[in-house]
Amino acid sequence: MPTLDQPTSVPKPVTRIADQWLRQILSLLYRRRNLTRFEIVETTGLNAASVSHALRYLLGRGVLYKAGDSNAGTGRRRETLALNAEAGYFVALDLEGDRLRFALTNFLGDVRCRWEECLEFRKPFAPEKVIEGIGKVTRDLDPSQLGRILAIGVSYPGLLDSEGRLSAVNLGWAQVPLLTILKEAFPWPVFMERDKETCIHAESWLGGAQNCGNALFLIAEAGIGMGILADRKHLMGARGFSGEIGHCKFVPGAEDLCSCGQKGCLEAIASGANIVRQYAERAGADAGKFRFVDVLERARRGDEVALSAFRRAGRALGSALSMAISLLDPEIVILGGDLIVAEDVMLPIIWEQIRLQTRPRSLEVVKIAVSGLGLDIRLKGAASLAFRNMLEDSELLGRICTPVP
Amino acid sequence: MPTLDQPTSVPKPVTRIADQWLRQILSLLYRRRNLTRFEIVETTGLNAASVSHALRYLLGRGVLYKAGDSNAGTGRRRETLALNAEAGYFVALDLEGDRLRFALTNFLGDVRCRWEECLEFRKPFAPEKVIEGIGKVTRDLDPSQLGRILAIGVSYPGLLDSEGRLSAVNLGWAQVPLLTILKEAFPWPVFMERDKETCIHAESWLGGAQNCGNALFLIAEAGIGMGILADRKHLMGARGFSGEIGHCKFVPGAEDLCSCGQKGCLEAIASGANIVRQYAERAGADAGKFRFVDVLERARRGDEVALSAFRRAGRALGSALSMAISLLDPEIVILGGDLIVAEDVMLPIIWEQIRLQTRPRSLEVVKIAVSGLGLDIRLKGAASLAFRNMLEDSELLGRICTPVP
Repeated sequence: MPTLDQPTSVPKPVTRIADQWLRQILSLLYRRRNLTRFEIVETTGLNAASVSHALRYLLGRGVLYKAGDSNAGTGRRRETLALNAEAGYFVALDLEGDRLRFALTNFLGDVRCRWEECLEFRKPFAPEKVIEGIGKVTRDLDPSQLGRILAIGVSYPGLLDSEGRLSAVNLGWAQVPLLTILKEAFPWPVFMERDKETCIHAESWLGGAQNCGNALFLIAEAGIGMGILADRKHLMGARGFSGEIGHCKFVPGAEDLCSCGQKGCLEAIASGANIVRQYAERAGADAGKFRFVDVLERARRGDEVALSAFRRAGRALGSALSMAISLLDPEIVILGGDLIVAEDVMLPIIWEQIRLQTRPRSLEVVKIAVSGLGLDIRLKGAASLAFRNMLEDSELLGRICTPVP
Repeated sequence: MPTLDQPTSVPKPVTRIADQWLRQILSLLYRRRNLTRFEIVETTGLNAASVSHALRYLLGRGVLYKAGDSNAGTGRRRETLALNAEAGYFVALDLEGDRLRFALTNFLGDVRCRWEECLEFRKPFAPEKVIEGIGKVTRDLDPSQLGRILAIGVSYPGLLDSEGRLSAVNLGWAQVPLLTILKEAFPWPVFMERDKETCIHAESWLGGAQNCGNALFLIAEAGIGMGILADRKHLMGARGFSGEIGHCKFVPGAEDLCSCGQKGCLEAIASGANIVRQYAERAGADAGKFRFVDVLERARRGDEVALSAFRRAGRALGSALSMAISLLDPEIVILGGDLIVAEDVMLPIIWEQIRLQTRPRSLEVVKIAVSGLGLDIRLKGAASLAFRNMLEDSELLGRICTPVP
């Protein structure tokens, strides 16, 4: 082996390594909620002395508490530890195309207070609405609680530029300086993440993709997109445009006009609103008269016209998933958005199409499941985004690790 | 910030960091071939003193040499440095379905000696053939040259288990203990990599995907598969099955029987052999009478029957690429295998189909190009695999860094 002397070696500051222990332990307890000291040592791979040291530190500052005893059949009682849910709060924002969702969450990302505001799809709205919404979910806090808010997490659609300006067709926004607006209005750090990324992170931290290195999250709402977890990392793509499959064409010759101006896009066939539109067209009715759940209910009752709209949508989604599964070899595909309530009707159609189009070997291990995180998925994801970023930010991490008054 | 004392901090061994400098400099010169001292400092980000130190070390051991002066219009002459191509040799193997390729390459991966042996597709063959082939490309070396062989790099199809046993339908092999066979027959370390991975790494190190973080390599030979470089890493998938798109179905109702037993697979429509088959069927001729290049030549001369076979293949490939581009947002798609010689006929058809099926935004930056590495791509990739692994192996790295006799 070559032996060069190394004149510029600078040892890492000791406290950075200690932060790393705190990060590992906090992120583990965030996900697993209750663990014994032994489980923490086993799972983090840290040595027992380091874990004891860090736990004593976190217990002393009220970030952890002793949650009770676990008696895992060993005859020996073991103390379990949990995160103090009140160790800090996060503000979570979910900017969707047709509504704004706001939440105040506790340290663990559980929603404590919620506010929702409907928008006119694609009609520009004043960014002040976002400030008002945050005001609404935080106004009942007393000053000491306000002081415990650690950060704002935002899940956004569209594109954020390097200066934090958001452009999103579905919001009617072009280069709205959202980051600056939030930073000027509130004293908290702001962390922002694209909606598809938020969903896959939420599933990976809190939902069906825990312990998965490779997972796909397909969401069908106003738009259709896919979040990709590949080899344990969220896959971004060259420009951050990965997962944009909503405007691919899977149905040859389809004439369905898409909101993007093209014809036959996946979105124009398989989004909730377009399932309603197809039903109404075939039934000779006015689409405005039906909600998605109405058409779904008819399909459940065996209405052939409703079923045929679901079949067309499910087959198009199945075609998209066939290719995505073959290409990316995931362990799990999680379906979200309108697909959550339509699981019973859609999932068999989607599976049938996938089996028709895919090599059996590609399907040997993959599971397809509906998201268990419900409509709050992006709020929970935005809170976990803020939590994750807090862990990486030594100053913020220090704020929760100071003695609780 | 929390301040924990850190009782178990162990500084990294000094020599590991020095190895890291050597790695960075060697891998940079492997790719870029000729660089000035200044360019090495700029590109590696190492400090000038460390670079000087490492260069002196490598020059003293004959791993680098002074390749001449560069006068980049500055009026000041600057010495350029290059790797000594004879600093070591690698053995490269490419196990394809219908032939075995062997090469002895120099340190830079340039082929010095080559051997090729045709196989009967899918008919099992004796693993001894692999040993004989390596013997053929190394038999003319004298003992001092033999002593400079550093490692064997292998590009394989199919699946390698954790004990180095290879199963590959196209080779007719089931659990052949290839790794053990090679290690017992030769004194060199053996590094093995799946063929799709080899191709994307070769393109990333030596070809069209240099400096790309996100690239796709589509290869169409006997089989069709895709290598994926995503956010600078080769994407594996949960079981190492990523990129297996050859058996997806993109042509509704297609009856083309695939070698896998299913109908309408991409491979059954768009592989070279199946383009020949489709041509022969439509022309009412015997497929055995034509090679791929014969049908290609007819298409070039405007033969409608040949053109229609290429159109059907190109459209199926375009459909696959439309989805892959939308999903993964690559900077470049590189086409390899039979597509290399058919660029003029296939690429316009593929592009037309991609444009038809894809959102324009997804195509704004992506380039599609034919591989410049030719049919040697996997040999070059296998040699670069051995080189890359050598860099990570301190003992091997030490072998090239000992004084040249």
